[in-house]
Amino acid sequence: MTHVSVLPAAARVAPTWLARYRAVRAQSQALCAPLLPEDTVVQPMLDVSPPKWHLAHTTWFWETFLLKEYAHDYQLFHPDYAYLFNSYYNSLGSRVNRADRGTLSRPALADVMAYRAHVDAALAQLLTERRDLPPLFFELLELGLQHEQQHQELLATDIKYILSTSPLAPEYLPAAGLPVNEAAGTVPAAWLPVPGGVHRVGFQENGFCFDNELAAHDVLLAPFELQNRLVTNAEYQAFIEAGGYRDFRYWMGEGWDLAQAQGWEAPLYWVRHADGWHRFTHHGMQAVVAEAPVTHISFYEADAYANWAGARLLTEFEWEAAARHFGATTSAGTWLESNLFDPQPLPADAEPDQCHQLLGDCWEWTYSAYHAYPGYARAAGALGEYNGKFMVNQLVLRGGSCATPENHIRVSYRNFFHADKRWQFTGIRLAR
Amino acid sequence: MTHVSVLPAAARVAPTWLARYRAVRAQSQALCAPLLPEDTVVQPMLDVSPPKWHLAHTTWFWETFLLKEYAHDYQLFHPDYAYLFNSYYNSLGSRVNRADRGTLSRPALADVMAYRAHVDAALAQLLTERRDLPPLFFELLELGLQHEQQHQELLATDIKYILSTSPLAPEYLPAAGLPVNEAAGTVPAAWLPVPGGVHRVGFQENGFCFDNELAAHDVLLAPFELQNRLVTNAEYQAFIEAGGYRDFRYWMGEGWDLAQAQGWEAPLYWVRHADGWHRFTHHGMQAVVAEAPVTHISFYEADAYANWAGARLLTEFEWEAAARHFGATTSAGTWLESNLFDPQPLPADAEPDQCHQLLGDCWEWTYSAYHAYPGYARAAGALGEYNGKFMVNQLVLRGGSCATPENHIRVSYRNFFHADKRWQFTGIRLAR
Amino acid sequence: MTHVSVLPAAARVAPTWLARYRAVRAQSQALCAPLLPEDTVVQPMLDVSPPKWHLAHTTWFWETFLLKEYAHDYQLFHPDYAYLFNSYYNSLGSRVNRADRGTLSRPALADVMAYRAHVDAALAQLLTERRDLPPLFFELLELGLQHEQQHQELLATDIKYILSTSPLAPEYLPAAGLPVNEAAGTVPAAWLPVPGGVHRVGFQENGFCFDNELAAHDVLLAPFELQNRLVTNAEYQAFIEAGGYRDFRYWMGEGWDLAQAQGWEAPLYWVRHADGWHRFTHHGMQAVVAEAPVTHISFYEADAYANWAGARLLTEFEWEAAARHFGATTSAGTWLESNLFDPQPLPADAEPDQCHQLLGDCWEWTYSAYHAYPGYARAAGALGEYNGKFMVNQLVLRGGSCATPENHIRVSYRNFFHADKRWQFTGIRLAR
Amino acid sequence: MTHVSVLPAAARVAPTWLARYRAVRAQSQALCAPLLPEDTVVQPMLDVSPPKWHLAHTTWFWETFLLKEYAHDYQLFHPDYAYLFNSYYNSLGSRVNRADRGTLSRPALADVMAYRAHVDAALAQLLTERRDLPPLFFELLELGLQHEQQHQELLATDIKYILSTSPLAPEYLPAAGLPVNEAAGTVPAAWLPVPGGVHRVGFQENGFCFDNELAAHDVLLAPFELQNRLVTNAEYQAFIEAGGYRDFRYWMGEGWDLAQAQGWEAPLYWVRHADGWHRFTHHGMQAVVAEAPVTHISFYEADAYANWAGARLLTEFEWEAAARHFGATTSAGTWLESNLFDPQPLPADAEPDQCHQLLGDCWEWTYSAYHAYPGYARAAGALGEYNGKFMVNQLVLRGGSCATPENHIRVSYRNFFHADKRWQFTGIRLAR
Repeated sequence: MTHVSVLPAAARVAPTWLARYRAVRAQSQALCAPLLPEDTVVQPMLDVSPPKWHLAHTTWFWETFLLKEYAHDYQLFHPDYAYLFNSYYNSLGSRVNRADRGTLSRPALADVMAYRAHVDAALAQLLTERRDLPPLFFELLELGLQHEQQHQELLATDIKYILSTSPLAPEYLPAAGLPVNEAAGTVPAAWLPVPGGVHRVGFQENGFCFDNELAAHDVLLAPFELQNRLVTNAEYQAFIEAGGYRDFRYWMGEGWDLAQAQGWEAPLYWVRHADGWHRFTHHGMQAVVAEAPVTHISFYEADAYANWAGARLLTEFEWEAAARHFGATTSAGTWLESNLFDPQPLPADAEPDQCHQLLGDCWEWTYSAYHAYPGYARAAGALGEYNGKFMVNQLVLRGGSCATPENHIRVSYRNFFHADKRWQFTGIRLAR
Repeated sequence: MTHVSVLPAAARVAPTWLARYRAVRAQSQALCAPLLPEDTVVQPMLDVSPPKWHLAHTTWFWETFLLKEYAHDYQLFHPDYAYLFNSYYNSLGSRVNRADRGTLSRPALADVMAYRAHVDAALAQLLTERRDLPPLFFELLELGLQHEQQHQELLATDIKYILSTSPLAPEYLPAAGLPVNEAAGTVPAAWLPVPGGVHRVGFQENGFCFDNELAAHDVLLAPFELQNRLVTNAEYQAFIEAGGYRDFRYWMGEGWDLAQAQGWEAPLYWVRHADGWHRFTHHGMQAVVAEAPVTHISFYEADAYANWAGARLLTEFEWEAAARHFGATTSAGTWLESNLFDPQPLPADAEPDQCHQLLGDCWEWTYSAYHAYPGYARAAGALGEYNGKFMVNQLVLRGGSCATPENHIRVSYRNFFHADKRWQFTGIRLAR
Repeated sequence: MTHVSVLPAAARVAPTWLARYRAVRAQSQALCAPLLPEDTVVQPMLDVSPPKWHLAHTTWFWETFLLKEYAHDYQLFHPDYAYLFNSYYNSLGSRVNRADRGTLSRPALADVMAYRAHVDAALAQLLTERRDLPPLFFELLELGLQHEQQHQELLATDIKYILSTSPLAPEYLPAAGLPVNEAAGTVPAAWLPVPGGVHRVGFQENGFCFDNELAAHDVLLAPFELQNRLVTNAEYQAFIEAGGYRDFRYWMGEGWDLAQAQGWEAPLYWVRHADGWHRFTHHGMQAVVAEAPVTHISFYEADAYANWAGARLLTEFEWEAAARHFGATTSAGTWLESNLFDPQPLPADAEPDQCHQLLGDCWEWTYSAYHAYPGYARAAGALGEYNGKFMVNQLVLRGGSCATPENHIRVSYRNFFHADKRWQFTGIRLAR
Repeated sequence: MTHVSVLPAAARVAPTWLARYRAVRAQSQALCAPLLPEDTVVQPMLDVSPPKWHLAHTTWFWETFLLKEYAHDYQLFHPDYAYLFNSYYNSLGSRVNRADRGTLSRPALADVMAYRAHVDAALAQLLTERRDLPPLFFELLELGLQHEQQHQELLATDIKYILSTSPLAPEYLPAAGLPVNEAAGTVPAAWLPVPGGVHRVGFQENGFCFDNELAAHDVLLAPFELQNRLVTNAEYQAFIEAGGYRDFRYWMGEGWDLAQAQGWEAPLYWVRHADGWHRFTHHGMQAVVAEAPVTHISFYEADAYANWAGARLLTEFEWEAAARHFGATTSAGTWLESNLFDPQPLPADAEPDQCHQLLGDCWEWTYSAYHAYPGYARAAGALGEYNGKFMVNQLVLRGGSCATPENHIRVSYRNFFHADKRWQFTGIRLAR
């Protein structure tokens, strides 16, 4: 494994690790608590996995990479589960075709929960009883926690997509519980300069990072400006009303063809009602909030919007340089833990000359291909398939979203999706 | 509606009808009782519908064709359910794309059960309180019962397919409950003659029939012979071992291409183990029983087998003439009510010169296209879509199966599927 | 081979056979004479084969079934041509995928013409020099001639489709050469009765027939009536104007879905201009002639039209019984030899109480599945694949068309296509 | 148009321009001279266009962007040709679906040649007679020449693919004419260092460049090494023999899935004979030359090879920095004008410490996404669609190939293809 984990010695003491492990595992289950068994099994599109699958796959990860390696008397929960819940590791044998995940009603949700309990007990025993676990074990433990957090974000977005397919527009959480955001206002967009020159990018701190954030290296940037906040729904509606979805001049060719073929005329989940645009949310169908950041747009739409607005998207290096320049922190962002599942408007009194929403609320599409950093090499073994084999044909997104656990993000964090994907909480920040 | 329902006057008295209604409705739910909610929502292939959908669609049928028409103060259970649970009636508006039935986790199974209870209560009230219901109402009532029985057969076969997709091979019913068929033996195949001449086919009795069984009419048949029983697994295995799946000379061209493209080498559900062929059943994975009728074969396979055996399939008129000639009854057949969900071997002492298994056990593929009988006309209104629009490109099957309710079948009953379908309990009877 | 060829002894004398052979072969080439090399190579849809392929495949048939068997010193023209020009004979090895026929620019048209000359010379030599050829040889010779005539019809219809794909609407033959049909008028539709009872169908004459016309057998028909002529363009336009393409009630379900998916709103080749309907023909774009028979319609459209008109289509047995009853002959029909490539209006003075257009002008869709007749058995060897393997999922058409060689047709002749096909000269005759 | 054309005044004198125009136009036709009309019309895969289409489309470009704008009395050759031969310009209206280019036999090749003559005459007249043409006209003239040269490369590679589909392996040029490369030898691979630091990339010279080469800008590179020549067939065969196509560890995930689905086990056009690997070339089927550069490999294969070899690919900026560092020139490369249509081995006496084959022979896959350079903006009008809308999801290739006209290339030239494309003359250069 090339991702580093410079752990303070104290962190390797079981109680701390066990507490973190239990908290992360509980969070996955808490996300599924509002669901019915029926909701946990369907796969309405290829990118979405059934929640039952997420709950089992993350468990398989612990079983495969930690328990089978380090718990010598560990008993597999079921011999077929490796086939059922391997995601994409060729190293680990054949597996269910991804497109067929939603055809399997069995094992039942209850079986999967028993699987989780079985693995949790074994891992707790391992952490509690063994004192000779090597440093690599703790690196894998850290990776397992990060991995499960990644699936928590997917759980949040996949659940939204699953519930959205029903014309009943079911509420994942009661709309009644939503806070009224009385202080929201439209902070005027403003351009903030970032100086050019040599910037260092990539992971440079202590603690965990994924291997795709390494090696840290210098890049040369021209001076640039970026906007002080994400593009809002009101701004995006102006693009829609101006015919942005019907004018090919703003679009990448492949994006234009796709948008025409699929009849896109607004972000995913938007529906035009007699009284204006509404959109499906975790709290059912809700009116579009003008001041909130636009979300659920593809790279193609983000790029077309930027072209229409006479601006452009940032590169991932510009984004990271800006985040470092402005000292971005997670404190003001909207995260998974908020239970809001929606990017939030800025408060009306937000300072226009500060750079807002860099971390949290929406993943920001960058105009950078997801490629390996200089010096990157895949790890040996199955974990070599974790990141490296995806490093072509996708674009980098930065900053985390309202579905990301807050302690999962970093300014060097690189998320990646194909240009057409819309079901994540994606957003737009303009540069020039 | 052109299907007749020559009902004795007594049958129109509520208690009898209500008892039948309740029995049929209860049977549908009994079939789903062994399922988990997860099982009721998936659609692993286009021909299969989720059990939850079957439970709701049959209920929609009652609501749409009876309650909305005759129960004047009836309150719709939910305004969106007509969109969700209409199967194929263009007359009744737009509907969920058939391929998307398995993407909808909501409404939940519990909601569908509440829907059933709501409709059952309304129908019971109607039958109990109203004395002025016209004859057409009772014809629709009869049709609704027959319709729900058709979906019971589909429930049985769809459930099998759904459970089969899991590598865990789950048991719908415990294998432990299966009877041991000690008396089974191989009754030698024998050819039984049926005289040629003019035969009358189509519904000629009292009671209910579907409109596709009308009008009864004369057909001229040459003398022919048919076998005294269905083709057995042992006989079909001989075809497999002789290379029947690798020799195009026995096959229809489209069947051969399909079998090659999909890699068929045995009936659906068959798996070759070290100790011989096994197959997935409602009772989990079971060894193939040599003496039992082969089932889950397409028309293409039935036809190829017959060619290999130097014989042919019957036409639907030959089949019906034979069934009338031999006075076929349902008494010896295996039906849905047996809870066996598998065609059964004949007893070892079955008479070789009698014609067995005409009714029950397996639908028999005939070499007759499913076309309208002379004088057929579609009914006016939505029920005109019940049968007529399917009368091309499919083949007739006769005789009912182990998944058919016993009182649902007749010698004039015409089932129909495309030549490639394998998930029904289909079988082979040879003629020459 | 089960198709009979009761040839008078005199027919086996070479000069007659050679003259027929040369005439048929010349006709194929004459059909291609107006084409450019570019036209002979494309395949704009799967059903269409490039003319170059037809010219070569028919030649391969002679080479494979006659020269290789009977001309002992015959030298293959090219060892790869069997792979290139085998159509669908599994018995004869692997072959170019049908969908790829239009990707092969080589061998060039000139090479194919050289291939034809090579085979023609060898066959002429065989017929001229050998006196010991067995009866089977002459049966194959007859079959080869019939086979090449079948491909002449396909050449005519495939050429039309190929030229139609260009927006330039090129003329295969100059429109200037078309006869002015001044005498055409609308003969009123009239119903002509045919008595019921036992009718004998299938080939009962002397000479050649295909094996699918055998065995002749008796069928029992109820009395019926059929119209005295084919449905005209004017009548079909009334169906269009009445919304026939937008009303599902007239349609088979699969036909309706296809028509919607493909946006059908008129027969193939029809285009609505400001001054009315036009259609692409072998003579370029031409106005629709009201009195001429409608053509280029699928079974689905023929059936929907009949439903709309309150009538139905004939079965193939009714058609044959009527053709025999009315003593249908080829003399008044429009055939390939006319060079008109279009069904023609009846003369204004045609007798309304005679049955017109049974032979020639348009293939008439019947409501009969293309299945084997009683007693049919596939021939041994490769020719067993000629007809038998197609005997499911298609419908029978009767009577020949304006693209059929006149001496190729019989009242027992059975043509067959899938219900969705439109590129042949198909038409509609009503019955009741 | 943002691509610059700093033309010396003298270049705007007609004779020079006309001579260049005529030479380029003649070259396109010379490339098609060995073809039959049949070869010019087919489209065996979506990436390939029929040669007839290339000849017409390039002509349409001149007509549309120059003649219609500047030749005031110009008569369109045919009103439908804009629809037929527009490639991808949404600005210029609807057009033939790309996938249907190979279905159009008309207009005939002769018509297209007449179209070329018509346009050539009009352009010659314009250049000869008009003295008031503005600078923009000459920029468009330059662009038209460059555009036609791009299609010459596509003609060469598309012709190869078209001829390859025939099992006859036809020769585009006679193999007899191939030079015997007696002096070829294997120059040992050696690593050549390039210093790190700030490098200026993008077009910095005088003359023409495409807009995608602008703006020139500085990039910061770490020191790196690259190999002194392209990877040879012998080296690539070692990868094949070592199981490189069967070991997912070397592959990008999408590449691995594609290679498995399509059964790749060698470069495109390679066939394993009893005596070793052969491959289809413009000179028919030829043995693989061990010392020649491997070609017709996708990015996925190039990347997998590099991984297997313990190396990596260059980025496009590294490539350009190296080309500038080593003073790459076109003089030693193999170009379209050679009529070899194959990358050539180095002479046996090539210096190992020089960097060979940077320009010519093979396009070198880089590990750089094809994105806009800083400051890039699409041109106004239809030419804004020339490059900009493709700037996502593709990879940059550098250096030109044996199918590129020699005077068409520059060290700043950016070619781009999707990662799966193999039909271009692509090659591999290793870096570390």
